[in-house]
Formats: sequence, C-alpha cells, structure tokens
Amino acid sequence: MKFAIVGTGAIGGFYGAMLANAGEEVHFLLNSDYAAVKEEGLHLISEVFSDIHLDKVNAFQQSADMPVCDVILVCLKTTSNESLLPSLVKPLLHDKSVIILIQNGLGVEADVAAMFPGVGVAGATALISVNKVGPGQMHHLDYGDIEIGNHNIQDTGIIDQVVAAFDKTGLIAKKAPDLNTLRWKKLVWNITFNGMSVLLNTTANKLLADKATYELSKAIMHEVINGANACGAQLPETMVYDMLQFTIAMRPYAPSMKLDFDNKRPLELKYIYENPVEMAKAAGYYMSKVDMLLRQLLFLSKY
Amino acid sequence: MKFAIVGTGAIGGFYGAMLANAGEEVHFLLNSDYAAVKEEGLHLISEVFSDIHLDKVNAFQQSADMPVCDVILVCLKTTSNESLLPSLVKPLLHDKSVIILIQNGLGVEADVAAMFPGVGVAGATALISVNKVGPGQMHHLDYGDIEIGNHNIQDTGIIDQVVAAFDKTGLIAKKAPDLNTLRWKKLVWNITFNGMSVLLNTTANKLLADKATYELSKAIMHEVINGANACGAQLPETMVYDMLQFTIAMRPYAPSMKLDFDNKRPLELKYIYENPVEMAKAAGYYMSKVDMLLRQLLFLSKY
Repeated sequence: MKFAIVGTGAIGGFYGAMLANAGEEVHFLLNSDYAAVKEEGLHLISEVFSDIHLDKVNAFQQSADMPVCDVILVCLKTTSNESLLPSLVKPLLHDKSVIILIQNGLGVEADVAAMFPGVGVAGATALISVNKVGPGQMHHLDYGDIEIGNHNIQDTGIIDQVVAAFDKTGLIAKKAPDLNTLRWKKLVWNITFNGMSVLLNTTANKLLADKATYELSKAIMHEVINGANACGAQLPETMVYDMLQFTIAMRPYAPSMKLDFDNKRPLELKYIYENPVEMAKAAGYYMSKVDMLLRQLLFLSKY
Repeated sequence: MKFAIVGTGAIGGFYGAMLANAGEEVHFLLNSDYAAVKEEGLHLISEVFSDIHLDKVNAFQQSADMPVCDVILVCLKTTSNESLLPSLVKPLLHDKSVIILIQNGLGVEADVAAMFPGVGVAGATALISVNKVGPGQMHHLDYGDIEIGNHNIQDTGIIDQVVAAFDKTGLIAKKAPDLNTLRWKKLVWNITFNGMSVLLNTTANKLLADKATYELSKAIMHEVINGANACGAQLPETMVYDMLQFTIAMRPYAPSMKLDFDNKRPLELKYIYENPVEMAKAAGYYMSKVDMLLRQLLFLSKY
C-alpha cells in the first residue's frame, strides 16, 4: 500500500515515520521543512519507542510531483482544509484511493467528502503527545494509539489494511465501529482542555489542580457527553472519571489550540466548537458552557 | 444629619463631596490620601455637573478620631468588609446610627448586619462612572443616580432623609421598594461585564461590538434575570434590551473588577458571583454560565 502524508508536521511526521520505518511506502508532502528533510531526513526522538532516523525520505514540495497513493493521510490543521485540500489532495488520487483525516473535530469528514465526490473518506483520532522540535524533527512524549472510523468508504477492507499497517509499527490501532462516537469521545477532552488552556493561559494539569476549574472541567465533560449522546453517540458518563485520571497522569503537554493561539495561528473553532454546539442544539441539547467557551474564544481569537 | 464616609475612594469621594457641597456635614475617613486631602482638600472634576472644590474637609485618618454620625456610608470594596468594617465603623455609631452600604453584590447587608447587632443596615446601588485620578481628586465621567433599599432599619424615615439629602445635590436619588430586586438589578450588569472584561482583557463596549460576545452577554443577562426571579426579585426580561442600549451608549469605562484585576487587588467574587450562584441554586435555578465565569475568575485570580 502506498501512503501519502499531507502535512508533515508533528502528527504527520510521527505517523509517517512510524509507517515508513515499518516498511510501508510513504510519500511525504512538506512545506517549509522540505529542503531540510530532503537533505537530512526525518528524525523521531521518542520517550516510549526506539528512536527512528529515516535518511532517505520520499519528500515532496508539491503534490503534483507525488505519485498517486492508496491512502491519503491528511494531517493538516482543519483550518487549512477549505483553502488547501482541493489542490493538495487531488493529484494524489487514483480510482480507489481513500482519504483518512487524522484531524480534530466534528463534521470534518462530511466537508472533505463534499470536496471529493466519489472518493471514500474516513476519520481517525490520535491519542498522542508529540511536538515538532525542528525541521523534520519530532519529539514524541507519550502515547500514539490511533482509531479509524469510516465515513463513506464503500470497500472497508482498506481500513483493515491500514489498521494492520499501523499495528506493524508497534502502535495500537483500531477500527472504530462508529465514527460519530469516536469523534465525540475525543471532543470530550478537546473541548474541555483546548479552550480553557487558551482562555486561562494555562495547562490541563494546572486546571485540574485547582478546585474551581477541576469542577468546571468535569461539568464541561458531562455537558459534552450529553451533547454527544443527544447526537446518537454512545458515551458512558463514567468516561469523565477515566479522562480526569488520564489527564492528571499525563506528562504536561500544551493542547494544540494553546500552541496555535500562542503562535498566532488560526484556532480550530469550527470543527472543535461550532459544529458540536450546533449539532447538539439541532438534536435538542444545548451545551451552555461549551457555547460560552466558543464565544469567548471567538472574541479572543480576533483581538 | 451627620454623614461619615468610610472609604474615600472614587465612589466615597464623589458622594461625600456632593453631599458636603450641598451643605451636609460630612466626615471623611481616608487612608493613603489623608495628608493630601487635609492640605489640599477634595476636588471633583465632572463632565456632567459643575466642578466641586472643597478646601476645608473634615478629613480623618482613624475613625477613633471621628465624631459619631447618623449615617455611615460604607464605600469600601466588599473584599475589605470582613477585615476592616468592625474596627472602622464601630467608633462612628450612636444609638440610632444607620449603615448604608454603597457596595456591589448580593448578601453583603446580611453579613454587615451580623457584625453590628442592633444597628440598622441598608444597601445602595450607584449608577456612576467615576475614577480617582489623584489623591483626593475624582474625575466624574457620567451618571450618579443612587437607589437605597432597606435591609433591617426599623425607622425607615431616615432613608427618606438620606434620599432628600442626595436630592439636594442634583443627583437623582430613590428609595427602592425591595433591596433584593435592587441588588439583582445591578448584578445583571455587574455579573456580565465585570467578569468578561477581566477574562477577555477588554471593555464592555468592545464585548458588545463583537457578535459572539454580544450574544453571550445577552445570554448571561437572561440567566441572571432568571436567577434573580427564582430568588424572589421582580426583574422583567425587557431590561436586557435597555441595559444593552445603555451600555453601548455609555462612555468607555473599565468595570471595577477589571481595574482591581489590573492593579492586582482582590476581586469581589464572593458578593458579585459566589452568593448569586449559590442563592439562585438554592432557589432551584442553576446559572450555568455565571458559575462558569465564577470558576474561570477564581482560577485567574490565583495565578
């Protein structure tokens, strides 16, 4: 199977390097790091796995120069989808290519599927702490599991093949029975900690160390679970406890939206906040606190 | 009638100067500004009224040196009540003295009444934009109306006399039929704009100029009105519209909590947020967004 990595940042670099290291044919689309990666390769320093140094990388600066691939892994921020995906992905597609979005948020697969009629799209959630620390250099702190849920791929055997390829890397990969539930599950964490870390200029572990924001985090999580289940997801209330324990135990790691905000990049508000609030509302449940977070972030992101 | 002003800041300085200028006997308790006021008097520059220069001021550095007064106007921040009021106010009281709190928030009269058993307490809300611009120097931008609601004063004739004294100054003064309604009415504004201006580092007019926070401000106001009415206040939903119009029209003015936060002073969270949230909850209405604001502010105020 030929993989294309569209967007070789921390996430794309990590998963692409893991796949290539396991023997898969991976083609990387790069932007600013192209020259460095072409010359010096990709380097993944991991606190968990053996380090990976890929000296010869299939690196490209333009997707027009890349071969068509079987699986297009989109690892860009969702804020770039509308402006970039049509031109970046189109040259990579053959008749049976599928697009898998390793992105955050809700409703992103439907929007991408609309850009590519007839092309199968799936979504993946990555549970991972990884940072880009230099051109083509990733620092992996923890985790790495990936779950893939189908959106509209006809022949889902290809998802099993992708899961098998990820399995070879040593990561735990799974096919999720329901993309909607998969997306909402990740949102319970992302909605709570991304926005609050931006607004209060802090980190998830500090939010949980303070009584007032510990209780608030819990309340937001419960609200997201209620919203999720109103939208047909199957999330148990008990996952709040698991997620709190997980977050307290994890190494300090700035949520992606905090990094985006600090670096004055656009925030992924549409898919992480706007769509969930609207979809839950349309399903009859108003996520009052999440809506408030969204509006506070909309204001902050403008000034 | 003899008035004591406990806390000669912007509010205390303004109302005290207006009363003294109208011929009332006013005794001012000052802290850091004492020497300057003793030497140079009190100066009120107003964009609305004639300027007032009081050259001879009954200024005191300790309440032990002050005469007993008929009306004690408390103009300190509520954050100082517990630690300061017992010692500051006690020497000023005679058998029939009353204490009027020109302060923000809910439940403050009950706490102060408990400090002074047998002494009548009332609360006042001031609609005013005034800043202290130097020692004993106030800059009055707009408004000044004051409403007084009784908490536990037996002979309420004294409230009428205080209203009459304020009336002489040219300000509009009123006796409110219900202190609970009066306090909640002011909270509709204070809860909404104080906290949001701190959290989003902005001003009320900018919050209302942005669509997302305009809608959020409206939603918070409605929530406070629902909380108020659950607690037995009588606030019409239509006041949201009036308050939005009023706020859009007012000269830019930093809410008091924003000034406190920027100057690293303690925030008046107990009376403006904690008590309202708890009291509404006890009455069966959960102010979800206000509770979230409170928890965000509790976090921010610590770090």
